[in-house]
Amino acid sequence: MTIPSGRTGTSRLLGYVVDTTRPDGRVSVTMTVTEEHTNRHGNLHGGLIATVLDTAMGATVSNIRGEGGKVLFSTVTLTTNFLAPMPLGTITALGRVTGGGHKTVFAEGEARAADGTLIATATGVFKRATG
Amino acid sequence: MTIPSGRTGTSRLLGYVVDTTRPDGRVSVTMTVTEEHTNRHGNLHGGLIATVLDTAMGATVSNIRGEGGKVLFSTVTLTTNFLAPMPLGTITALGRVTGGGHKTVFAEGEARAADGTLIATATGVFKRATG
Amino acid sequence: MTIPSGRTGTSRLLGYVVDTTRPDGRVSVTMTVTEEHTNRHGNLHGGLIATVLDTAMGATVSNIRGEGGKVLFSTVTLTTNFLAPMPLGTITALGRVTGGGHKTVFAEGEARAADGTLIATATGVFKRATG
Amino acid sequence: MTIPSGRTGTSRLLGYVVDTTRPDGRVSVTMTVTEEHTNRHGNLHGGLIATVLDTAMGATVSNIRGEGGKVLFSTVTLTTNFLAPMPLGTITALGRVTGGGHKTVFAEGEARAADGTLIATATGVFKRATG
Repeated sequence: MTIPSGRTGTSRLLGYVVDTTRPDGRVSVTMTVTEEHTNRHGNLHGGLIATVLDTAMGATVSNIRGEGGKVLFSTVTLTTNFLAPMPLGTITALGRVTGGGHKTVFAEGEARAADGTLIATATGVFKRATG
Repeated sequence: MTIPSGRTGTSRLLGYVVDTTRPDGRVSVTMTVTEEHTNRHGNLHGGLIATVLDTAMGATVSNIRGEGGKVLFSTVTLTTNFLAPMPLGTITALGRVTGGGHKTVFAEGEARAADGTLIATATGVFKRATG
Repeated sequence: MTIPSGRTGTSRLLGYVVDTTRPDGRVSVTMTVTEEHTNRHGNLHGGLIATVLDTAMGATVSNIRGEGGKVLFSTVTLTTNFLAPMPLGTITALGRVTGGGHKTVFAEGEARAADGTLIATATGVFKRATG
Repeated sequence: MTIPSGRTGTSRLLGYVVDTTRPDGRVSVTMTVTEEHTNRHGNLHGGLIATVLDTAMGATVSNIRGEGGKVLFSTVTLTTNFLAPMPLGTITALGRVTGGGHKTVFAEGEARAADGTLIATATGVFKRATG
């Protein structure tokens, strides 16, 4: 199943699409970058790069450690490294679980342009939502 | 001077306002959080918290180390710690330069809700744009 | 009370001293930097800067949130920013709790040379040890 | 060539060995963990985990981007995620270059116990030493 971009306020506003259909459970987030997403350099704003990475990583954690996405996790901390500027085009972020347990899960992510250029990497810690 | 929210694509899309009028040179970014900015928990998306922090920090660096904002800096790395969920309302991020030199500058930031609750802190490294 | 440097294997090996006597509950760690602590640049190894910061931050969290140091916390993640090289001399790291709850606590720290130069800053997440 | 543990003050003090002989240019750092390296939990101190990761990553950057190790790089920022406690035994950290250019290089690293358990991951930014 592909979660439609209308699923959350942010996904509608930014226009990204979340894909949870990968056989390995990892979740990807794809966004078409337009002038609406640019910073003062004319490239994709770093905060929005962090947003697609955070979304892909959190959804991956929820998918793999949260009973197939039923249990949500919230982000505790996120570190994003900006390796290359992202011009207009399509960016795809992909999450991966690296470790942790039931309540606290570690994940990493990478975001690439359509030509494969590595735009950013991230690591983060996610906490199981209670109640 | 307050940079109007229309200054960049991202500031228009998200609706945040950048204020560079503080006497100490630190730059703040204020955003009214609506349902358009929410994550699956119904709170402000962590990536958008990172976005206002990144913007406030980068603009502070540019303001203080970049000839009053004439020279832009790009974000090399950004670490955001999410201390409390941010519900609908007004969030304000404020940057501060902590060190570094001419080309590489270190900054930190904090984002607070209107009632003063500390929502998130961040640290980052910024690099002077060349050419 | 000042915890003697012999308290843990690492504190003995590196020779740092942990001071938990501050009225505000924040814990400082002081180390005399000798040639034993140097990297290939002849300055204090960045990993050892991270070590005194991690120690000060974790002990601060344990002191303030762990019943006066009775409950230990372990480090979940630590980000260290290296603002200036630290030559031979005395370095002091100081921790501060920034937020969080009972089990997960956020902290920051800064490390300064004897002349006040800010050598490094850090942020981290700490988890209450169970059992 | 294996750089002997006596190469720097820190490598002598901690007793780690740096191996630069891998055909892919990545550098590993191996340390036998004894009670001298323990924290208050009786496990390897997190700061020392950061130290072997920082060393492996910085040496990898220097090896691959610094003319085979002739040019040194210094650490600008380092984020370490602590996935599992490391008891007494042998830990090995391995670096990898992920991107960047001539002066600023991005790297990641992972540290594993002898049985393959992933103990910690790290990302960092490294800057070419000048002069």
